[in-house]
Amino acid sequence: MAFGWIDEQAELRRRAGLVRTLRPRPADSPLLDLASNDYLGLARHPEVTEGAARAARTWGGGATGSRLVTGTTELHAELERELADFCGFEAALVFSSGYAANLAAVTTLAPHGSLIVSDAGNHASLIDGCRLARGATQVVAHADPDAVRKALGTHEGPAVAVSDTVFSVDGDAAPLAALAEACRERGAGLVVDDAHGLGVLGDGGRGAPYAAGLAGADDVVVTVTLSKSLGSQGGAVLGPARVVDHLVNAARTFIFDTGLAPAAAGSALAALRLLRREPERAARARAVAGELHARLTAAGLEAVRPDAAVVSVRAPSPEQAVRWAADCRAAGLAVGCFRPPSVPDGISRLRLTARADLSEAQIERAVRVIGGARP
Amino acid sequence: MAFGWIDEQAELRRRAGLVRTLRPRPADSPLLDLASNDYLGLARHPEVTEGAARAARTWGGGATGSRLVTGTTELHAELERELADFCGFEAALVFSSGYAANLAAVTTLAPHGSLIVSDAGNHASLIDGCRLARGATQVVAHADPDAVRKALGTHEGPAVAVSDTVFSVDGDAAPLAALAEACRERGAGLVVDDAHGLGVLGDGGRGAPYAAGLAGADDVVVTVTLSKSLGSQGGAVLGPARVVDHLVNAARTFIFDTGLAPAAAGSALAALRLLRREPERAARARAVAGELHARLTAAGLEAVRPDAAVVSVRAPSPEQAVRWAADCRAAGLAVGCFRPPSVPDGISRLRLTARADLSEAQIERAVRVIGGARP
Ligand SMILES: Cc1ncc(COP(=O)(O)O)c(C=O)c1O
Ligand SMILES: Cc1ncc(COP(=O)(O)O)c(C=O)c1O
Repeated sequence: MAFGWIDEQAELRRRAGLVRTLRPRPADSPLLDLASNDYLGLARHPEVTEGAARAARTWGGGATGSRLVTGTTELHAELERELADFCGFEAALVFSSGYAANLAAVTTLAPHGSLIVSDAGNHASLIDGCRLARGATQVVAHADPDAVRKALGTHEGPAVAVSDTVFSVDGDAAPLAALAEACRERGAGLVVDDAHGLGVLGDGGRGAPYAAGLAGADDVVVTVTLSKSLGSQGGAVLGPARVVDHLVNAARTFIFDTGLAPAAAGSALAALRLLRREPERAARARAVAGELHARLTAAGLEAVRPDAAVVSVRAPSPEQAVRWAADCRAAGLAVGCFRPPSVPDGISRLRLTARADLSEAQIERAVRVIGGARP
Repeated sequence: MAFGWIDEQAELRRRAGLVRTLRPRPADSPLLDLASNDYLGLARHPEVTEGAARAARTWGGGATGSRLVTGTTELHAELERELADFCGFEAALVFSSGYAANLAAVTTLAPHGSLIVSDAGNHASLIDGCRLARGATQVVAHADPDAVRKALGTHEGPAVAVSDTVFSVDGDAAPLAALAEACRERGAGLVVDDAHGLGVLGDGGRGAPYAAGLAGADDVVVTVTLSKSLGSQGGAVLGPARVVDHLVNAARTFIFDTGLAPAAAGSALAALRLLRREPERAARARAVAGELHARLTAAGLEAVRPDAAVVSVRAPSPEQAVRWAADCRAAGLAVGCFRPPSVPDGISRLRLTARADLSEAQIERAVRVIGGARP
C-alpha cells in the first residue's frame, strides 16, 4: 500500500521512545509556563491582543494574496518601518513566518556559484535555506570565527556566513563581532538569525546585532521572528534597502506566499510599541534567566550559562528527559524537552525560557519542581 | 563590497522591465478587487474578523512555541477536526502557511530512495518541497496522467505523484481521477495541493479531491491553504491518520516552526463554519468565473476556460501585461499580472479571480474596463 512504509518508521520510533504527540492546551492552563518563547510575556498582553483584534476588523482575516498582488497593506508597511527603525537597519521585509524569512534570506543571498558558510548549530530553517540555495554550503564548527575565516578562504564570487545569534537549543550566543570581522576580511556578507535575540538582547531589546555594533552595516542582514518576544506570528528580514529590494524580486517564500495576516502584523506592532515604551522588559528577561541559572546550578543541576533568555539543563538520556519533563508537568510546570533527532549534538535536555514577567516566587517554585523531579 | 553583486542583478531587472515594487493598500481601497484569492469574499466578513478577534483575546497574539511544545491549543485541534471532517479525510494537521504545509507533505512523503513525479506546472512551494526532499524528482508534462504512469515505471520503494488540483496561474484543473488511477496501478501515493480548490470545487466547496471521489482514500494526501477561500492565513495537510502522525514526527516546517497564530486559526474556523452554513457560495464563485470568461471571450479576449475561480487572460508581452494591469488600476480595477520569471511557461497574462460576492454590475464593469484597456 502506498504509504505502508510509514508504519515501519512509526514502529522504529515507538521502540526508540521517540514518539511525539500533540497535547492541545486549554485557554486557562493552570501550568506555570517555562516552555514557550514568549520571552517578554506579551502574547496575552491586552494591548497585543487588541492590536490583533483591531487589525482583523480593519483589514480582514487574511492578507488575501501575495504581498506583490493584494497582500501588502499600509499596516505591513508600518510594521516594516518601525521594525527597521527599532533594530537600526535601513529597511525591513515582513514574511508569514520566521521560517519563511530565513529561507528567503539564505536562498536569495547565495546564488549559483556562491559559498555559504554555516554554523553547525544553526536552526532548521537556516539549514533548509542552505539546502534550497543554489550556492555551495560548507558547515563549520559551532561558534568559531576562525573556522568561518578559513572556510571563506579565497572564494571568488558572492559569499555569506550564516549563524543564529542565540542558539535555540542551548541558548548560547554567537561571537557576532568576531564573525563580522572574519566576513569583512574576506569580503563576505553576514546573515544572522536574531529569533532569540530580538526583545532580549541589546539596548531595550534591539537585538544581538545592535548590541554587537552591527546595526545598519551594509554587509549584515538580520532575520527576526515576530513569534517569540513580540508574541505574535511572522518573520522579517532587516538590512540595506538594496537587499530588501532584491528579496522583493527574488525570494520565493515572499513572492509565492500569502502576506502575513493583518492580525499578526497588528499584534506584533503593538508588542513592538509596548517594548519601546517599556524597554526594561528586555533586561528583566535576562535577569530572570541569570537567576534561574544560578539557582539551578546551586541545586546541583548542570545548566548552561544563558547569554539571553534560554536556559538549557542537561538530561542523562532521551527517556529520562521525557520522564523529567512529564514529572515537572505533573507538578504544574511546563518545560521544553529537546532530544534527538531535533538536537544537533544528540544531547537531550530540558529547555527553560525565562519570561520577563515571572515573579520571584514563580522562579523559586520552578527550580524547586525541576530539582525535585530530577532523574 | 559584500552585497555589491545585487546591484548588477537589479540593473538587469530594470532593463528587462521586470522590477517588482510593493504597493501598500489602504483599508478602504476604492478599487474593485479581481486580484485577491478571497474567492468567497469572506476575508472581511464580520463573522470571520470576529473569529480572529475573539481567538486573539482568548488565546493570545501568538501560539508562543512549536506545536510540539506550547503551540497547540484546543482551537488548533478544533480547526483540524472540522477541516478533516469537511473535506472527508481522517485527520488534518495545521501549519503556519500553505507554503509550509506543502514543504512538509512533500519532504516527509519522499524519503531517501523514493521517487517524486512532479507536474511541470506545480506551485513554487511544491517545487521547493521536491528540492528539499531526499527522494529523486522527475518533472513530467503538465496535466498528463500517462506521463505520470510512465515516470513511476517500476520504481522500487516509496513513490508519490505531486500536483496542484487547480493550477494557480491559468486556473486549469488537474485530471485527479486519472492521476489517482495511474498512481494506484504503480502502488504510488498521490499528493495534491488544493489551495485553489477548497471552497470552490466539490459539493459545497469540499474541494477538488472530494469532487473526484478521492476523499478519505488511504493513498491520497491533500494540502490546503487557509489563506484563500477561508480568508485567513495558514495551511493544512489532510490524509490518513498514519500520515498525519508521521508529519507530526518528521516535518521540519511543523516541528521547528511556531504554531499558527490563534487569530488566524479563529478566522479560518469561522470561515469554514460559514461555508458549511452557506454552501451556495462555492457554486456562486464558479458561476462568476464562468460568466467572466464568457463575457471576456465575447469581447474578443483570449481567456482560458476556468475550471475553478481563476480566469487567466493572455497578454502579448510582459511589458504590455504590466501596462494593461496599470491601466485597469487607473480605471478602478485591481487585476493580477503574472509574468516571467513567475510563470512556468514564460507567457504573461492578467489573472482575474472570481469572487462569489461580485455583483452582475461589478462583473460587467470589470469586463468593460479590461476590454477598454486591452493592448
Ligand atoms: C533560531 C530560530 N529561527 C527561526 C525560527 C522560526 O521562526 P518562526 O517560528 O517564527 O517561523 C525559530 C523558531 O521557531 C528559531 O528558534
Ligand atoms: C497552489 C498554491 N499552493 C500553495 C500556496 C501557498 O499557500 P500560502 O500562501 O497559504 O502559504 C499558494 C499561494 O499562495 C498556491 O497558489
